[in-house]
Amino acid sequence: MREQAVDYHPDLGAAMDLIISAGGKRIRPAMTILIGKMFDAPSDLLLSLATAIEMLHTATLVHDDLIDGALLRRGTPTLNSKWTPGATVLTGDFVFARAAKLASDTESVPVIKLFARALTIIVNGEIVQLLGSKCMADRENYLKRIYAKTASVFETSAQSAALIAGVSNETVEAMRRYGYEIGMAFQIIDDMLAFTAEQATMGKPVGSDLHQGIITLPALNYVERHADDPLAKMLLSGKCLNEDQVNRLIESIRRSDAIRTSHQEAVEYVERGLENLCRLPPTAERFALEELANYIVERKF
Amino acid sequence: MREQAVDYHPDLGAAMDLIISAGGKRIRPAMTILIGKMFDAPSDLLLSLATAIEMLHTATLVHDDLIDGALLRRGTPTLNSKWTPGATVLTGDFVFARAAKLASDTESVPVIKLFARALTIIVNGEIVQLLGSKCMADRENYLKRIYAKTASVFETSAQSAALIAGVSNETVEAMRRYGYEIGMAFQIIDDMLAFTAEQATMGKPVGSDLHQGIITLPALNYVERHADDPLAKMLLSGKCLNEDQVNRLIESIRRSDAIRTSHQEAVEYVERGLENLCRLPPTAERFALEELANYIVERKF
Repeated sequence: MREQAVDYHPDLGAAMDLIISAGGKRIRPAMTILIGKMFDAPSDLLLSLATAIEMLHTATLVHDDLIDGALLRRGTPTLNSKWTPGATVLTGDFVFARAAKLASDTESVPVIKLFARALTIIVNGEIVQLLGSKCMADRENYLKRIYAKTASVFETSAQSAALIAGVSNETVEAMRRYGYEIGMAFQIIDDMLAFTAEQATMGKPVGSDLHQGIITLPALNYVERHADDPLAKMLLSGKCLNEDQVNRLIESIRRSDAIRTSHQEAVEYVERGLENLCRLPPTAERFALEELANYIVERKF
Repeated sequence: MREQAVDYHPDLGAAMDLIISAGGKRIRPAMTILIGKMFDAPSDLLLSLATAIEMLHTATLVHDDLIDGALLRRGTPTLNSKWTPGATVLTGDFVFARAAKLASDTESVPVIKLFARALTIIVNGEIVQLLGSKCMADRENYLKRIYAKTASVFETSAQSAALIAGVSNETVEAMRRYGYEIGMAFQIIDDMLAFTAEQATMGKPVGSDLHQGIITLPALNYVERHADDPLAKMLLSGKCLNEDQVNRLIESIRRSDAIRTSHQEAVEYVERGLENLCRLPPTAERFALEELANYIVERKF
């Protein structure tokens, strides 16, 4: 990732350093590398692909944080908290450009098509979130949103690694399913942790989505099971809550079984994801992919 | 271009309509289609490629106008003059994503690499312009800037059309040169018209670059030939001018031979560009490419 800015304006290098030093779990490229290695994909192509995946993800975060006005991500300052909006837009564009370059280094048109598709889905999802209706307690809507936001890139990470390894269509499809299910689980856990973890751990306020009128799974599970709660009634009829009401709802959600139920749903996604690995030979990479999937639902941040 | 937003959020369709209705000369895709047809490139690939080129160009303009705070382009309101910054950033990203999809529809990895390269060069050029030194009267710097801003996409338009037609490397290189030279001429003429045309024709104030501390060829030609003018001295020593000084300098440039000299330089680029066509068979497309090149330096807006 660092190398990608070497021949360009020095501030782009500084931006890359800032973005890279902010850390992150690097789960998407880890998935790509494990799947690629499992199927003996050429190492150089795999490295380009994994870097491209993380940079695609990173570029969307750079623009996302700018649009949200987020000052922190993973507890460290965002690019937009230090740079002008213009420089932040262009840095995101630059990271997109380098992700496209790295994706094309795989020499695989199908892989590049998956990248273009993933970016289209992510950006359309963000437009829907920005311009669409707020305070919608709708499960189908939620699942579409987390697919666009997260599972689409996990799916691309897994499927494209299988593609460059040249395995059968059936195996490529199994890897795509694995990536999809794990990605859905990942976002559900993220949304759950937004209610249960402390602000210091998550790097953002508890229940911040709900404050912005975005209803995630814990809230959905709560309102579906507590239709008698006046706050649940409001959300189910599409009314937004004021700040005090949101704070009360967050407390109710934290005390209810909505958290445990959400976790259980994530576990079911992981189980469906793991089914796609069971026919594979028992390699170290397969075991690591199983561990990765289990880590997703066990993590505390 | 319209079709590219059909399956997504309706406001993206509205944005595409707004962008398309703003018009534009569509010179880049015209060049792509003429070169592709001249060499019998498959029509469907050529259409994808030409659309991808115009959308790549369009996406960069959407972000560029947002960053500059430009309210008008080609005399019609920009997207950022009507939409929030966030929606404008995302619309630009969406257009990038669709350009990447269309580029991948050519099924040519070399074409996709050219797109990724062009985007990298454009964005790096914008970063340099945004964060780099202002008021630099430096010819090498100017030529690098107009290559990044304009000639890189012209070059990509021409070279990628030849690539998908499967012609010899030598012919691909000749088309790349043609695109490069015409692109350089195009931007020089744009920079010249910024001094000579009326605001109503250009859709922006006369000499607006100079007001932002950006020195284009007419100003360069003036200061290089009038080193005794105190305003020229200031620019040559890297000092920025105040608004009154800029207005006086614009008047001096308009009255000087700097305009004619700049035009002559553009004509020389076009002549070098045309040399790359002279060995080609005398087809209708070749004549149209010659006309296109001559139109570039004859246009009044």
